[in-house]
Amino acid sequence: MSGRGRNRRGFLAAAGGVLGAAGLAPVLRAAEFKPEAPDWTKNLGPGVDAAPYGKPSPHEKHVIRRSVEWLTATPQSSVNFTPLHELDGIVTPNGLCFERHHAGVPDIPPAEHKLLVHGLVERPLKFSMAELRRFPPTSVFHFLECAANGGMEWRGAQLNGVQYTHGMLHCVQYTGVPLRLVLEAAGLKGQAKWLLLEGADAAAMTRSLPLAKALDDCLLAYSMNGERLRSEQGYPLRLVVPGWEGNIWVKWLRRIELGDQPWQTREETAKYTDLMPDGRARRFTWLQEVKSVITDPAPEARLAGKGFRCIKGLAWSGEGRIARVDVSRDGGRNWTTARLEPPVLPKCLTRFYLDWQWSGEEVLLQSRAIDEKGFVQPSPAVLQKTRGVNPIYHNNGIQTWAVNRDGTVENVRLG
Amino acid sequence: MSGRGRNRRGFLAAAGGVLGAAGLAPVLRAAEFKPEAPDWTKNLGPGVDAAPYGKPSPHEKHVIRRSVEWLTATPQSSVNFTPLHELDGIVTPNGLCFERHHAGVPDIPPAEHKLLVHGLVERPLKFSMAELRRFPPTSVFHFLECAANGGMEWRGAQLNGVQYTHGMLHCVQYTGVPLRLVLEAAGLKGQAKWLLLEGADAAAMTRSLPLAKALDDCLLAYSMNGERLRSEQGYPLRLVVPGWEGNIWVKWLRRIELGDQPWQTREETAKYTDLMPDGRARRFTWLQEVKSVITDPAPEARLAGKGFRCIKGLAWSGEGRIARVDVSRDGGRNWTTARLEPPVLPKCLTRFYLDWQWSGEEVLLQSRAIDEKGFVQPSPAVLQKTRGVNPIYHNNGIQTWAVNRDGTVENVRLG
Repeated sequence: MSGRGRNRRGFLAAAGGVLGAAGLAPVLRAAEFKPEAPDWTKNLGPGVDAAPYGKPSPHEKHVIRRSVEWLTATPQSSVNFTPLHELDGIVTPNGLCFERHHAGVPDIPPAEHKLLVHGLVERPLKFSMAELRRFPPTSVFHFLECAANGGMEWRGAQLNGVQYTHGMLHCVQYTGVPLRLVLEAAGLKGQAKWLLLEGADAAAMTRSLPLAKALDDCLLAYSMNGERLRSEQGYPLRLVVPGWEGNIWVKWLRRIELGDQPWQTREETAKYTDLMPDGRARRFTWLQEVKSVITDPAPEARLAGKGFRCIKGLAWSGEGRIARVDVSRDGGRNWTTARLEPPVLPKCLTRFYLDWQWSGEEVLLQSRAIDEKGFVQPSPAVLQKTRGVNPIYHNNGIQTWAVNRDGTVENVRLG
Repeated sequence: MSGRGRNRRGFLAAAGGVLGAAGLAPVLRAAEFKPEAPDWTKNLGPGVDAAPYGKPSPHEKHVIRRSVEWLTATPQSSVNFTPLHELDGIVTPNGLCFERHHAGVPDIPPAEHKLLVHGLVERPLKFSMAELRRFPPTSVFHFLECAANGGMEWRGAQLNGVQYTHGMLHCVQYTGVPLRLVLEAAGLKGQAKWLLLEGADAAAMTRSLPLAKALDDCLLAYSMNGERLRSEQGYPLRLVVPGWEGNIWVKWLRRIELGDQPWQTREETAKYTDLMPDGRARRFTWLQEVKSVITDPAPEARLAGKGFRCIKGLAWSGEGRIARVDVSRDGGRNWTTARLEPPVLPKCLTRFYLDWQWSGEEVLLQSRAIDEKGFVQPSPAVLQKTRGVNPIYHNNGIQTWAVNRDGTVENVRLG
């Protein structure tokens, strides 16, 4: 209730009171005010049998995941991006969740899928999906971000659109079995310290996961937003590793091996490491640190004219909850605290808003998130100072959108 | 964290400790344990360009909304039902949200849609969707339940499936403009006490709404689960009336008139009233009272055999948050408190679980929800005692599933 109260006062103040609010819609003269029915009320449209599984309105066909052709050799080893500028709230609809594949999407009959658990365990186990679904489930809202989200922006502004700079990101309610329960069923041997996770795709995606994280909050997930996983998200089974980079959320999960040390797989040595200025690589840097971005205005969501605008954005942290988001309109010199929308959940997207009156001047918009552990989203300059310009992973730098006098918005990098 | 701890202890106890948990999966002999890759790992599947807007796996094509042919004259004046037994968590995916239409789904070009606000206001207003979207938005998770959900069950068990007994129910994150802000922009005259809401469908769905509710928590919603409303859910604009019967959540909303008394429309006089035993009708009974149902086991989700089973269900109340859910396995004589899964949000579905060991006996499963205001879900007998057998709306009675010795599950009515 207090959130709604603040919402209203903030809005009325920003819009210049009630008359300002009224200014968002033209006041009608009496003669114009004929509430006659539009044409479409005269047509009896489709009934409840038209689409047993519904689809978006044809008027929304521009709201899609998009990829770039030049990034990888084939669409089977590529990524597409969530249209963040088109989305509201914190839930990403399943049809718009970004995809990243290393060898395409396998077609797995769920009745034939098996999960093997072996290695340093008392009892090697093999689970069918039906057996896994007998375990007590847990449902949790979590963001999933690719470690490479924003990777092309390390050396400067490259891509003109929030769908491309930040769209390797989605957030859904996942449901599955706590991984801990399955490990306890198998019985861990004392030397067990690491898990090997292997996917059933043609890349046999393989990653090492420390046991402490596996026992903490990982899920063997079979559902997202209520329904079974989409094929491209690992149907029928993927690992959910809350707050950690997407690559380790192994999809089409078929094998878990317990061992006493990491496996040093390709995806944690040649890839998904951060090459530092001294030529060494940071490895096993799984955490997605505190981050935020303004999704509206954005290059794809320009300003149509002067006046009131509600700035909208998303914030998230692999450490836990978002504590605060600040917004700057002058490239980081002055900051105003934004309104966070409940529920503010751990390792989950948080929606923020700031009411704003645009007078037509040039503006440098930024957002800066702070999480419950006190970590502050850094500027790109700070990131480059410590990590150089080689990395492509774990870019959680502050994004700047330049608003031009004509209302267009551009991706820029401040010095 | 404490929730997860309880989860685990409850499960291990119910499953008979670690060995019982292991019993959910066959222990393998060493010779059987060959983790060779299944066939589908040898195929390079589709890439990220295959489906710019994704769809469910073809293996899930049985998970659909379903209608019954005999209920109404045409599919344009009918309802279909959400497959609750197939869903996890609290979010209903947009493609599976039940539909109820009175004259089919109009096709409305969003750029042409207008919302009129007139009557007892200082400034009659006409909003385009772009103008409405300039107002500061709010996103909230809410359930939407048709007043007639379970209506066919008033006189006894009729329909054998939770999809049909309780499936006029969905829950999504809605985003829109607080109705209050738009009313303030128009300026309310002192005599204004009621709103008339009119939809742009061929039925011109029309309902009266008291001003106090309009100023409290109603939303002019344009998005659900992050993306724009689906056509069948009112695209481009519907009213969200948290906790109240679905019929008043007017879809394809095109007109709001302010008046000093209700309009006594067809949908609040001839329909959507509760005919009492004395021949009078309760009118303006908008609230969806505290209710719950077990979604698994259910007639569509039988028990495959003896042993561990996690009972899963949903609870909700138009009064606010769910405070507690109890589960009975003996038709209401003894009750055990179920585990509520966070987040527990007001006027939103809440997921509950109870770990259970089935020994193969006949069981009468029930759930009973209690909300934060202390209201308790009644038995059908109590409901009938006060309201008789004429009503079809506002049935929030306790549901009984009879589990037979062969594991099949039936809808029954206890005396």
